[in-house]
Amino acid sequence: MNSKERGRRRFLKDGAAMAQLGLAGLAAGTLRSAKAQTLGSETAEARAKDTRFYGERSRFVNSARTLVGTGPASNTPLQDSVGIITPSSLHYVVMRFRDEPPDIDPRQHRLVIHGMVDRPLIFTMEELKRMPSVSRIHFVECAGNTSPVERRSAKTVQETHGWTSCSEWTGVPLSLLLKEAGVQKGATWVVAQSADAGKHTKSIPMEKAMYDVLVAYGQNGEPVRPHQGFPLRLLVPGWEGVANVKWLRRIQVVDRSYMMKVESVDYTVLRPNMDGKALWYNFQLGPKSVITFPSGGQRLPGRGFYEITGLAWSGGGTIRRVEVSTDGGRSWKDAQLQQPLHRIAHTRFRWDWNWDGEEAVLQSRCTDDQGDVQPSVAQISKQWGVTTDFWKETETRVNHWNAIHSWKVTRDGSVQNALFS
Amino acid sequence: MNSKERGRRRFLKDGAAMAQLGLAGLAAGTLRSAKAQTLGSETAEARAKDTRFYGERSRFVNSARTLVGTGPASNTPLQDSVGIITPSSLHYVVMRFRDEPPDIDPRQHRLVIHGMVDRPLIFTMEELKRMPSVSRIHFVECAGNTSPVERRSAKTVQETHGWTSCSEWTGVPLSLLLKEAGVQKGATWVVAQSADAGKHTKSIPMEKAMYDVLVAYGQNGEPVRPHQGFPLRLLVPGWEGVANVKWLRRIQVVDRSYMMKVESVDYTVLRPNMDGKALWYNFQLGPKSVITFPSGGQRLPGRGFYEITGLAWSGGGTIRRVEVSTDGGRSWKDAQLQQPLHRIAHTRFRWDWNWDGEEAVLQSRCTDDQGDVQPSVAQISKQWGVTTDFWKETETRVNHWNAIHSWKVTRDGSVQNALFS
Repeated sequence: MNSKERGRRRFLKDGAAMAQLGLAGLAAGTLRSAKAQTLGSETAEARAKDTRFYGERSRFVNSARTLVGTGPASNTPLQDSVGIITPSSLHYVVMRFRDEPPDIDPRQHRLVIHGMVDRPLIFTMEELKRMPSVSRIHFVECAGNTSPVERRSAKTVQETHGWTSCSEWTGVPLSLLLKEAGVQKGATWVVAQSADAGKHTKSIPMEKAMYDVLVAYGQNGEPVRPHQGFPLRLLVPGWEGVANVKWLRRIQVVDRSYMMKVESVDYTVLRPNMDGKALWYNFQLGPKSVITFPSGGQRLPGRGFYEITGLAWSGGGTIRRVEVSTDGGRSWKDAQLQQPLHRIAHTRFRWDWNWDGEEAVLQSRCTDDQGDVQPSVAQISKQWGVTTDFWKETETRVNHWNAIHSWKVTRDGSVQNALFS
Repeated sequence: MNSKERGRRRFLKDGAAMAQLGLAGLAAGTLRSAKAQTLGSETAEARAKDTRFYGERSRFVNSARTLVGTGPASNTPLQDSVGIITPSSLHYVVMRFRDEPPDIDPRQHRLVIHGMVDRPLIFTMEELKRMPSVSRIHFVECAGNTSPVERRSAKTVQETHGWTSCSEWTGVPLSLLLKEAGVQKGATWVVAQSADAGKHTKSIPMEKAMYDVLVAYGQNGEPVRPHQGFPLRLLVPGWEGVANVKWLRRIQVVDRSYMMKVESVDYTVLRPNMDGKALWYNFQLGPKSVITFPSGGQRLPGRGFYEITGLAWSGGGTIRRVEVSTDGGRSWKDAQLQQPLHRIAHTRFRWDWNWDGEEAVLQSRCTDDQGDVQPSVAQISKQWGVTTDFWKETETRVNHWNAIHSWKVTRDGSVQNALFS
């Protein structure tokens, strides 16, 4: 992509009057694309409400996100997932400052790029959609997904792992916008800010901003949905969810990290043995996987053939291997991976299993193309300097938990969460 | 996949009691998976209606399928498409015998495999979901898409090309079910039948049935939607849409093709010069592409930079190359293809264009990995033995039209359908 973007650099030369409106140009949004016009008709709106024109789900399908804890957070129903795409309507939601997403009119929305740049820029949505775009399938996962404190009493995979989802995202590379604006010498970070009332902000190092970050307006072939940031969000592949700023309206180029409250308190990784040290700038999510069928709360009707299936993902790159165990980790077999593989995306794995009717402990373990292997609970504990029993009692919130997960199948076929097996 | 399936052959050995219920076992549907149980709660249903739990589109987004002609057919709004996935709700619809899809209770639905097999089989949906599955991204296109008779007066790409859509489909390989049933010597075709009142049927040669056909229950990460065949449809990659039988309930293994009315009259390809000959068994769709932006009915607000983008697909395999012309085919430039490439799938292409404000004719031309190149209108005409003017007047319906498509950009920026440029 870098060579592509170099080739495209300053592509706005002929159309410079459009993009380089400057910050004073806020009211200059006179451009209207035919796209906006075709979308704007009342006829289309009426038709969208007609099931013949906007195909609804069957009334027998009512898989939904479920509320976990208090506040406006809900989890993807991974136990119902098939393939690698999460339906946009079922993408997990964590909102920090509100119960409902803001109701943004895309014709009024603007993205501002300013700070340490040669040419501050302001874009309408229509202008962004004219620019060179890319589409990529990526997961987004909350750093708190599967945190032991909140998840140890959970029953289903929706409750234990439902803060991860995967979509085909479409947008403009942030690097392209930054190059158009002209990043000044000494600029080392960007600060992204949301248009919602909470003004959620996130600092991102320039190196990542120039690498693979998207300013995304499309999700699974249609506009990003309101809960996911309509009309515009940041997509920071492989980094914790909080970095993927929704309702994006401002990108400031700066020479330091601005650690906002949410970054410095809520999202640092405290060492649970309380030696006073914390891991800052630990943004990338490690290799992780979970079996979605059979999973907690389900029941196998009897011995015989089952396809064990689940999802694996890593912030570090492409999943190269998933192994499955049915005996609590004593032996492992290679699962099949859905092809083609996508970088920093949910990867579906499948493994054929003949259940003999005896008690079984199902686990999955993934490896990414950097060679990083999903750790066991024992390995994570050693890394943190605690015993495995620590996780059963602690009230310390732990982010970036990516340990191998266990589901216990009892002889009656019921499947139970066995987080610390 | 073949080696995979060979390895899995007779996987039901231990669970044979489940699958080999035989045709008399229709009432034996006593198995209930936990999945069905978790889906069935009224609480989940209530939550699904709550926008916090089932994320709706923005009220500013009303892109919808549009009715074309008479009857229950509607087109995908390709002018609004981004990436390669079509939202399930916007997948094109052609229904032959009804205005609304049947309202099938998946707990009551059965798939029967019978005819020239050693072991007739009957499956509940829960049984199918336990079996080895695959997920693949494939397009589905109606053979009549872009037929000149219906499309020459069309204005938008939704009207000219909207009978093609692309989804991640999940299901069981038909080959696996056929191997379980045990195909008898001399069997050369399968006949697939729908559960709807029209009992739509389609004959498919055994060679294709054993190659890459899916019995699909998943679409874009959730159950197939009613308009697309809930709870079960056939997915016949690269073949005309009519072969992808929706609401699938019966697969009969036979020793000849049963040419039903819809196959023998509506879907044969008549030679338009009326020499009395017809092409039968012409099922595979050729290489085809179209520019979705800028496209008919849209208006460019002024000269300057635009990303030309569109979709290419081929029933023959993977798209390897897309070229774009802005001068009506006198010169061509290679477009960028969205990675990774998927076989028999929509492939997004992109090309950077600086419009000088003069009249332009935009075209795209694709090549698949078999070396097949999308033909020009002149080449198609020559193949049919007619002049290019023929298409402007004929009332003969032509299926499998895959000619290079032209959009004319006038100096005022408006974009017009120029089907026969």
